[in-house]
Amino acid sequence: MELELKEMLHDLETLRKALPDHPSNQTLINKLQSHVEHVCSLAKSVPVRRSKVKDMSAEVVDSNPYSRLMALQRMGIVENYERIREFSVAIVGIGGVGSVAAEMLTRCGIGRLLLYDYDKVELANMNRLFFRPEQCGMTKTDAAVQTLADINPDVVLESYTLNITTVQGFNTFMSSLKNKAFRSNKDSGGVDLVLSCVDNYEARMVVNQACNELGQTWMESGVSENAVSGHIQLLIPGETACFACAPPLVVASGVDERTLKREGVCAASLPTTMGVVAGLLVQNTLKFLLKFGHVSPYLGYNALKDFFPTMEMKPNPQCSNAACLERQKEYILAKPARDAAAKAKMEAESLSAAEFPLHADNEWNISVVDDSEADKSDAKSSDFLPEGLMRELPTADDFQKPPVSEPTVSSNDDLDELRKQLEALNAA
Amino acid sequence: MELELKEMLHDLETLRKALPDHPSNQTLINKLQSHVEHVCSLAKSVPVRRSKVKDMSAEVVDSNPYSRLMALQRMGIVENYERIREFSVAIVGIGGVGSVAAEMLTRCGIGRLLLYDYDKVELANMNRLFFRPEQCGMTKTDAAVQTLADINPDVVLESYTLNITTVQGFNTFMSSLKNKAFRSNKDSGGVDLVLSCVDNYEARMVVNQACNELGQTWMESGVSENAVSGHIQLLIPGETACFACAPPLVVASGVDERTLKREGVCAASLPTTMGVVAGLLVQNTLKFLLKFGHVSPYLGYNALKDFFPTMEMKPNPQCSNAACLERQKEYILAKPARDAAAKAKMEAESLSAAEFPLHADNEWNISVVDDSEADKSDAKSSDFLPEGLMRELPTADDFQKPPVSEPTVSSNDDLDELRKQLEALNAA
Repeated sequence: MELELKEMLHDLETLRKALPDHPSNQTLINKLQSHVEHVCSLAKSVPVRRSKVKDMSAEVVDSNPYSRLMALQRMGIVENYERIREFSVAIVGIGGVGSVAAEMLTRCGIGRLLLYDYDKVELANMNRLFFRPEQCGMTKTDAAVQTLADINPDVVLESYTLNITTVQGFNTFMSSLKNKAFRSNKDSGGVDLVLSCVDNYEARMVVNQACNELGQTWMESGVSENAVSGHIQLLIPGETACFACAPPLVVASGVDERTLKREGVCAASLPTTMGVVAGLLVQNTLKFLLKFGHVSPYLGYNALKDFFPTMEMKPNPQCSNAACLERQKEYILAKPARDAAAKAKMEAESLSAAEFPLHADNEWNISVVDDSEADKSDAKSSDFLPEGLMRELPTADDFQKPPVSEPTVSSNDDLDELRKQLEALNAA
Repeated sequence: MELELKEMLHDLETLRKALPDHPSNQTLINKLQSHVEHVCSLAKSVPVRRSKVKDMSAEVVDSNPYSRLMALQRMGIVENYERIREFSVAIVGIGGVGSVAAEMLTRCGIGRLLLYDYDKVELANMNRLFFRPEQCGMTKTDAAVQTLADINPDVVLESYTLNITTVQGFNTFMSSLKNKAFRSNKDSGGVDLVLSCVDNYEARMVVNQACNELGQTWMESGVSENAVSGHIQLLIPGETACFACAPPLVVASGVDERTLKREGVCAASLPTTMGVVAGLLVQNTLKFLLKFGHVSPYLGYNALKDFFPTMEMKPNPQCSNAACLERQKEYILAKPARDAAAKAKMEAESLSAAEFPLHADNEWNISVVDDSEADKSDAKSSDFLPEGLMRELPTADDFQKPPVSEPTVSSNDDLDELRKQLEALNAA
C-alpha cells in the first residue's frame, strides 16, 4: 500500500503540470495530495511483526522471547528445552480448548502445529479465550493462523479447513498425520502427539480411528455441557484403553449432535473451565514431549468442588474397534522385548548408582556432622543467608520459653491421688 | 478514512473535466481512481468493533456473545447470571496471571475491572498468554485496556499505571478501592473482590495491608520460580489467615526482589501453569460472586504430579499486622449475631424442606414402583430415549448369558468330598 500511495503522489505532480494554470485546479491537486499523505500516515501505524529467532537463547534480556522458557533448564525442570522445536503437534478442533492449547504451544515455541477445523468464528464464541470480535466470519483455522503467526513467527503453522468426519476430510487428515517432511528423523511418525479438542462423540471416534490405525499416541479433552467440569486423557494405542474401549452410554444417532444441542438450548461454556482444561492438556503435552514430571493417564476437573479425580484404564479385549484390537495384540507380543529393555535399564541404573553415595539426591540438604564439630559451627552455618535475604520469623532460639504456669497437680501425686481429686470434683 | 477516499474520487472526476483532452491525461486519472478504489477496499477490511449490548440475552443465535454464559442458568448452575454486571473486581498486577484473569472476566461480562500495574510489555513476556509482540513498549495497563475494550466493550475498564508499593501509589490504590461511583447499592464497598496477581512479597504485603484496613475480601495467587507449581488463596480479613499471619520463611530485605531474581538467572514461567492458575482464580471468583459451588480457601497446583492440595488457615492471634488483629476482634465480637443468623436460616430451610418429599433432590432418578406395575412397564420405560439418541452398549437383557461351563464339582458334594478331591490333587 505504501508504494501505491507514493506513486499516487507522483502522478498528481504530473497532473499539476498538465493542467491549465488556474487557482481552483491547483487547490484541488493540493487537497488530493494532502489526502494521500494522510492515508499514508494512517497506513504507517499498522503494527510491525516480530522477526524470527534462529536459536533459542537463554540470555536474560527483555528482548528475548525465550528467556523464561530456557530458564526451565537452569531450574532443573527440563534437560533440553530447545528440543521443543523438533516436535509436531496436531490439534483437532480449534474451539474453546483447542485454540487456547494452540496459543500456549505457540508461545512455548513448539516446532510445528497442525490445525483442523471447519467452523467459522461467531460472536457466540466470545465467552471463551483467543478469538476476537473482529475475526467473526473468518474460518477458525484462518483466524488462528493470523493470531498465532503474529505471536510467534518461529512456529510452522499448517491449517486444514475441513471436517474430519467426512470421507475426504478423513483421508486428508490421515495423510497429514503421516507426512514426515518436517522430521529430521524420518523413521519416526509424522507428528509426535495429536490433541483432540472436539465437542462431539462422532469426531472423537474419528480421531480414535485414525490414531488406532496409525498407532499414534494422542490426548483427548472435553468439557461438560454445563461448563463446570472437564477432563484430559492420554491414549496410547494397544497400551491404554482407546476411546471405543469404554464408550459413553448414550450417544447421538442419525442426527447431527450440534442440532440436538441447539434445539432450544445451547451448551453453556466458561473461559475459566476451558482455560484450565487447555492448560492441563498442554502441561501434560510438555511433560510428554520434553520428558519431565509424570504424565497423567486421566485427569478430571470438577469446578464446583475443585476436585481433580485421576484414574487409569486398561484396553478392553472386547473393544469394538478392530484397529485397537490389532494394537493390543502387538503390545502383548512386544512384552518380552519391553521387559528385557526395562531390566537392562534398571541394571544400568543400579550400576551407576553404586558409583555414587547413597542418597546422592539430597533434597533437604541433610548432612552428617560430628557432634563436637556441630557445637562449634552450628550457630554460624544455620544463620547464614545470602546477601539481600533476611528471615521473616525469629529463629527458634530467639523465642521466649513459654511461661511455666502454676502446677495444679504436684509432681509427687500418684494415680490414686488423682482419682480422689476427680471424685471430689464430680461430687461438688 | 472512507469519507476522505470518496471525496478524492469526486475530486479526480472534477480534474478529469478540467484537463486538456489528451489520452495520457485520461490514463493518469483512471490510474489514480483505481488506486483510490484499491485503498478504499483495503480500508474496509480494517476491523470494526462489536457494539455494546444493553441487556444480556439468553437467545441461542450465533451473534449473541452471552448465549453460552446465560445457558448456565438453564443448566441450573447459576441462579441469575446477569448479576455479574453489578460487580467490580480489582486486579493488581497485569502479568502472566493477572492479564489472563482480566481477559476471562472481560469475556464473562463482568461489570467493572480495575487494573493496576506500572510495568511495560516486553518480548520476554511473550511466553505467557495475552500480550502480543506489537504491544511491546506499551504499559501493561494501556495494552490490556486496548485488547479488553476490543473483546468486550460492555465492561467498564479503569486502569491505574502506578506502583502500589510507593506512598503515592498506595494512596491512589486505597481511594480507588473505596470509590463507590459504580455501585447501585452505595452501602457496600467500592469493589467486590481484589485479585492479587503480583510476583513479589513486598507487593503482596501492600495488598494485604490495604485489604486488612478496608475489611476487603481478596484472593491471592502465585506461581513458583521454577514455573511448575502455583496456588490461589481466599483471604477474608478477621475470618481467615491474612498474608502476614503466616509469612514466607525467607524474604528479600533492603534490595529490590526483582534485581535478586535477575542476577544471572531469571525466573522460569510457562503459559500453561499461569493459565491454569488464572483459570482456577477466576473460576473461584465467579463462584464467590454468583454464589454457586464451593469457594476454595486454598488450592495448590503441582504441575509435575497433577496434584492439587487444599487447606484452610485460621487467623494468627499473634499476627504482626495491626489491622488484621482489629478485624479478628470484630469477627469474634460479631459471633453471636452470626450464630443467630445461621440458626434462623437453618430453621427456615428445615421448615421449607418439610413441605417437600424427602430426597426431592433425586440425582439418580430412583423411583419407588410397585413390583407388579414394574413388571408391566419396565421394558418400555427403561428403554425410552429421546428421538435422535441411541444406546452405544446393548441393554443388560440383550447380553447372552455366559455359557455354563461343565461343572467340575457336582452340587451334592459336601465339604469332606471337596477336601478329598483337593488332597488327591496335591498328591498328584
